[in-house]
Amino acid sequence: MNCTEHAMAEWDKVIIGIDPGTNVMGYGILGVKSRNPYMVAMGVIQLSKFESHYLRLRRIYDRVLSLVEQYLPDEMAIEAPFFGKNVQSMLKLGRAQGVAMAAALARDVPITEYEPRKIKMAITGNGASSKEQVQEMLRRILKIDREQLLPQLDATDALAAALCHFYESSKPIKVSSSSSWKDFVLKNPQRIKK
Amino acid sequence: MNCTEHAMAEWDKVIIGIDPGTNVMGYGILGVKSRNPYMVAMGVIQLSKFESHYLRLRRIYDRVLSLVEQYLPDEMAIEAPFFGKNVQSMLKLGRAQGVAMAAALARDVPITEYEPRKIKMAITGNGASSKEQVQEMLRRILKIDREQLLPQLDATDALAAALCHFYESSKPIKVSSSSSWKDFVLKNPQRIKK
Repeated sequence: MNCTEHAMAEWDKVIIGIDPGTNVMGYGILGVKSRNPYMVAMGVIQLSKFESHYLRLRRIYDRVLSLVEQYLPDEMAIEAPFFGKNVQSMLKLGRAQGVAMAAALARDVPITEYEPRKIKMAITGNGASSKEQVQEMLRRILKIDREQLLPQLDATDALAAALCHFYESSKPIKVSSSSSWKDFVLKNPQRIKK
Repeated sequence: MNCTEHAMAEWDKVIIGIDPGTNVMGYGILGVKSRNPYMVAMGVIQLSKFESHYLRLRRIYDRVLSLVEQYLPDEMAIEAPFFGKNVQSMLKLGRAQGVAMAAALARDVPITEYEPRKIKMAITGNGASSKEQVQEMLRRILKIDREQLLPQLDATDALAAALCHFYESSKPIKVSSSSSWKDFVLKNPQRIKK
């Protein structure tokens, strides 16, 4: 986990990104200052050491809750695949997502979910890019030192979800192309009364 | 919801049963006194009125947490189907189960899950019995007045999960049939040295 020296109160907005899994759960904390995103922290929650499914769920709940209480995020972005291998693995994934979401809901943090493809698209411009490519782009965008990067790609995946949410939520509101009379006149010369 | 006049402290043990669904979630509270089970409360959490998936999850979390805080259960029993129609519905069900479990985990309540078939078997002796048959057997075992029963079968399903857990957890520990010398001698007359 890498923390900047900024106190959390200095950020205009804090986004927590979560990449839930049943063996490893990744998280990333993104701070926004003057419309620029910065990496505040990232890490993984190791779950494979717990044999019981309940201990894993409990660990996810406890750790996500403590991250929410430590970094006071304004919003949560979650990487959520909509399809999986089989109903069994989807039920388990759903439970892992559910307890992570409950930790956010318990502290009134709104949640937005993004498909993995959408996150990759937002970061690298290619929905089919590899985890390594996502990590490398993240490193450049957020100016993260190579030494700061964790070997676990789940952590960068979670940070990528947070950055994707930052891009999505700071998109300018689309204005219809014929919203001004000037535009309308330019585009419809035949309708000008001569 | 029907509450008995007993204060919760009077029970030797309290079990909360949960039947999680994405449209309706049922719950049942079972009190145990001198090894006998009694119905303390049952009800449903209506979710279909909330359009947003997150509002539903939040409602489940809030209500289950308030039930846990009100009835202070020692254990949670959850009806958990292991197979479903498709990966989509299993992911949603997993999330609903996850947030309900998180509410129990947040208050250190241990969770046990039971397959619907196992619950039916425990209550009616038939794993393929209908929800109405389960309800009728529950009514007789727990001496519930007909007027007290809710029309929603999800509530009795949840109470059935709690009763199934009561039966399972009060089973005598199996003693091997040849654990005493007397038994061994009786069963193996040919091995006695004359």
